[in-house]
Amino acid sequence: MRLGDLGEFGLIERIERAARRLPRSRAVVIGIGDDAALLRPGSGEDVAVSTDSLVEGVHFRFATQSPKTVGRRALSVSLSDLAAMGARPLGFTVALVAPPDLAVGTLDALLAGLLHGARAFACPLVGGNLSAGSELSLAVTVLGAVERGRALRRCGARAGDRILVTGSLGGAALELARAERGLGRIRSVPIPRLAAGRALARLGGVGACIDVSDGLGADLGHLLAGGRLSAEIDPARLPRPRGFATGCARLGLDADRIALGGGEDYELLFTLRPGGPGLALLARRLGVPVREIGRVVAGRPAGRRGAGWRHFEAPR
Amino acid sequence: MRLGDLGEFGLIERIERAARRLPRSRAVVIGIGDDAALLRPGSGEDVAVSTDSLVEGVHFRFATQSPKTVGRRALSVSLSDLAAMGARPLGFTVALVAPPDLAVGTLDALLAGLLHGARAFACPLVGGNLSAGSELSLAVTVLGAVERGRALRRCGARAGDRILVTGSLGGAALELARAERGLGRIRSVPIPRLAAGRALARLGGVGACIDVSDGLGADLGHLLAGGRLSAEIDPARLPRPRGFATGCARLGLDADRIALGGGEDYELLFTLRPGGPGLALLARRLGVPVREIGRVVAGRPAGRRGAGWRHFEAPR
Repeated sequence: MRLGDLGEFGLIERIERAARRLPRSRAVVIGIGDDAALLRPGSGEDVAVSTDSLVEGVHFRFATQSPKTVGRRALSVSLSDLAAMGARPLGFTVALVAPPDLAVGTLDALLAGLLHGARAFACPLVGGNLSAGSELSLAVTVLGAVERGRALRRCGARAGDRILVTGSLGGAALELARAERGLGRIRSVPIPRLAAGRALARLGGVGACIDVSDGLGADLGHLLAGGRLSAEIDPARLPRPRGFATGCARLGLDADRIALGGGEDYELLFTLRPGGPGLALLARRLGVPVREIGRVVAGRPAGRRGAGWRHFEAPR
Repeated sequence: MRLGDLGEFGLIERIERAARRLPRSRAVVIGIGDDAALLRPGSGEDVAVSTDSLVEGVHFRFATQSPKTVGRRALSVSLSDLAAMGARPLGFTVALVAPPDLAVGTLDALLAGLLHGARAFACPLVGGNLSAGSELSLAVTVLGAVERGRALRRCGARAGDRILVTGSLGGAALELARAERGLGRIRSVPIPRLAAGRALARLGGVGACIDVSDGLGADLGHLLAGGRLSAEIDPARLPRPRGFATGCARLGLDADRIALGGGEDYELLFTLRPGGPGLALLARRLGVPVREIGRVVAGRPAGRRGAGWRHFEAPR
């Protein structure tokens, strides 16, 4: 069956039914189906909101990943922005544009992926929009709540800050490179570091925080923007997934370059004021492995601290 | 200059600069440019959220309306959903998909339309997303705030309720019909009935409320859904814009049918418990003309109250 046979209202009913099977959330006063959804943050909490789009042929191709993986990824990528603010999810909406000849099965799988994420991260689907169009795209908007004055910012890094990152880098870029060479499909979905973000927001002493979507180098640039700052990074210290060096070597890729430049890992990149907790304590508090990879320095870097060190500056 | 020449980051910078020129809002703690925006509802307020999409060739064509009108319309249509909940705007995000060969001037005009609405309705642009794609589309997500327990709902109509509507109906459908016949462009932009919605939410005695987007008949169906209800409507009582009968006659259109079935007027359609304020007092409270057009009745309509009356039931 094609989408055009089901029609807009048939499809909306299908989605509303699926959304209503999700576990109920105390944060949702009015869910899907009214003119707007109504969400209730806690008292003394601000509301974080972020929108991301995925377009077929630009951000994904069904040749290299299943519709369910695309659905899961769409929500994860947006939730990662909440994680980088230290917010907890309240709910999300999705604006779906789809060609009428899309198989209903493809749409059901996309939806299953979105709802998988909704369950996994306690972020209910509370509304959305459906429209015909010539290409498939999803715009996901997530809402979250964060205690007033506790939100993590992109700005706020200072000279002397330690630079740290959760999890590992380069895995997503390596998987993509493999899929592009026809050596397997993209199956992994980034895990938004929600618990780690909330723990960081409570920790204090955080300078700045961002999620690594464009690649470590580019996102470091965003953290340094505004101030006259640069960063000294030791590529050898970048955390990488198991088997990464071998995987890169097999494809003839420079592992350091992939770990530094590859995007879409959605780890948290943050700075801490000097001193502060050690890595073991930090990892325990955040619930994920944490690695210290360098330092923020004032002005343009004068010299190199060693052959392996890389220097990053804010974009001009 | 084409969009592709400017690049994603050039374009984002352009939008952020424009968004920052908007008047500052106390509701915006963090605006555009961080991982997520941060909004602050009042204490004791819930957050309303609604998403709508406009796709070129489906919802608009630049042959019949200017990019600025499209931008204004995109925000108005979403704000109308907040109006129908009785909420005040906090801010909005936009997910824009655009082909790389789109003229930058077209995009600037779209953006100017969005920001015109942002100023007019005190609803700042707080975030968004840009992506390349083969067709132009905008997904606008609005956030609003409404006092706890005061939100207007679609459900809640009861037998005996008076049925009322703000403003006038049919004007948007007539303008569209004219434009489709090459007799002029679409220049009017719906005004979201925000003040009227908030006044209704404070009024009490409201059964149900919705904004008229699909047409009076279809949206009445939404109001009646769930209960065993139907509506008796006197088409002769439907408020119409000045010159409407003549305009319809000129195109050979049935004026009653256009007023009943034409969509996109974005007026508020609501029910009030029997008794309650008279129309003059109501219009003063709501700040817009209000017309009483019929009643909610129990079950399926038994007979006709007069030759002109039309009966609507909830969809099965």
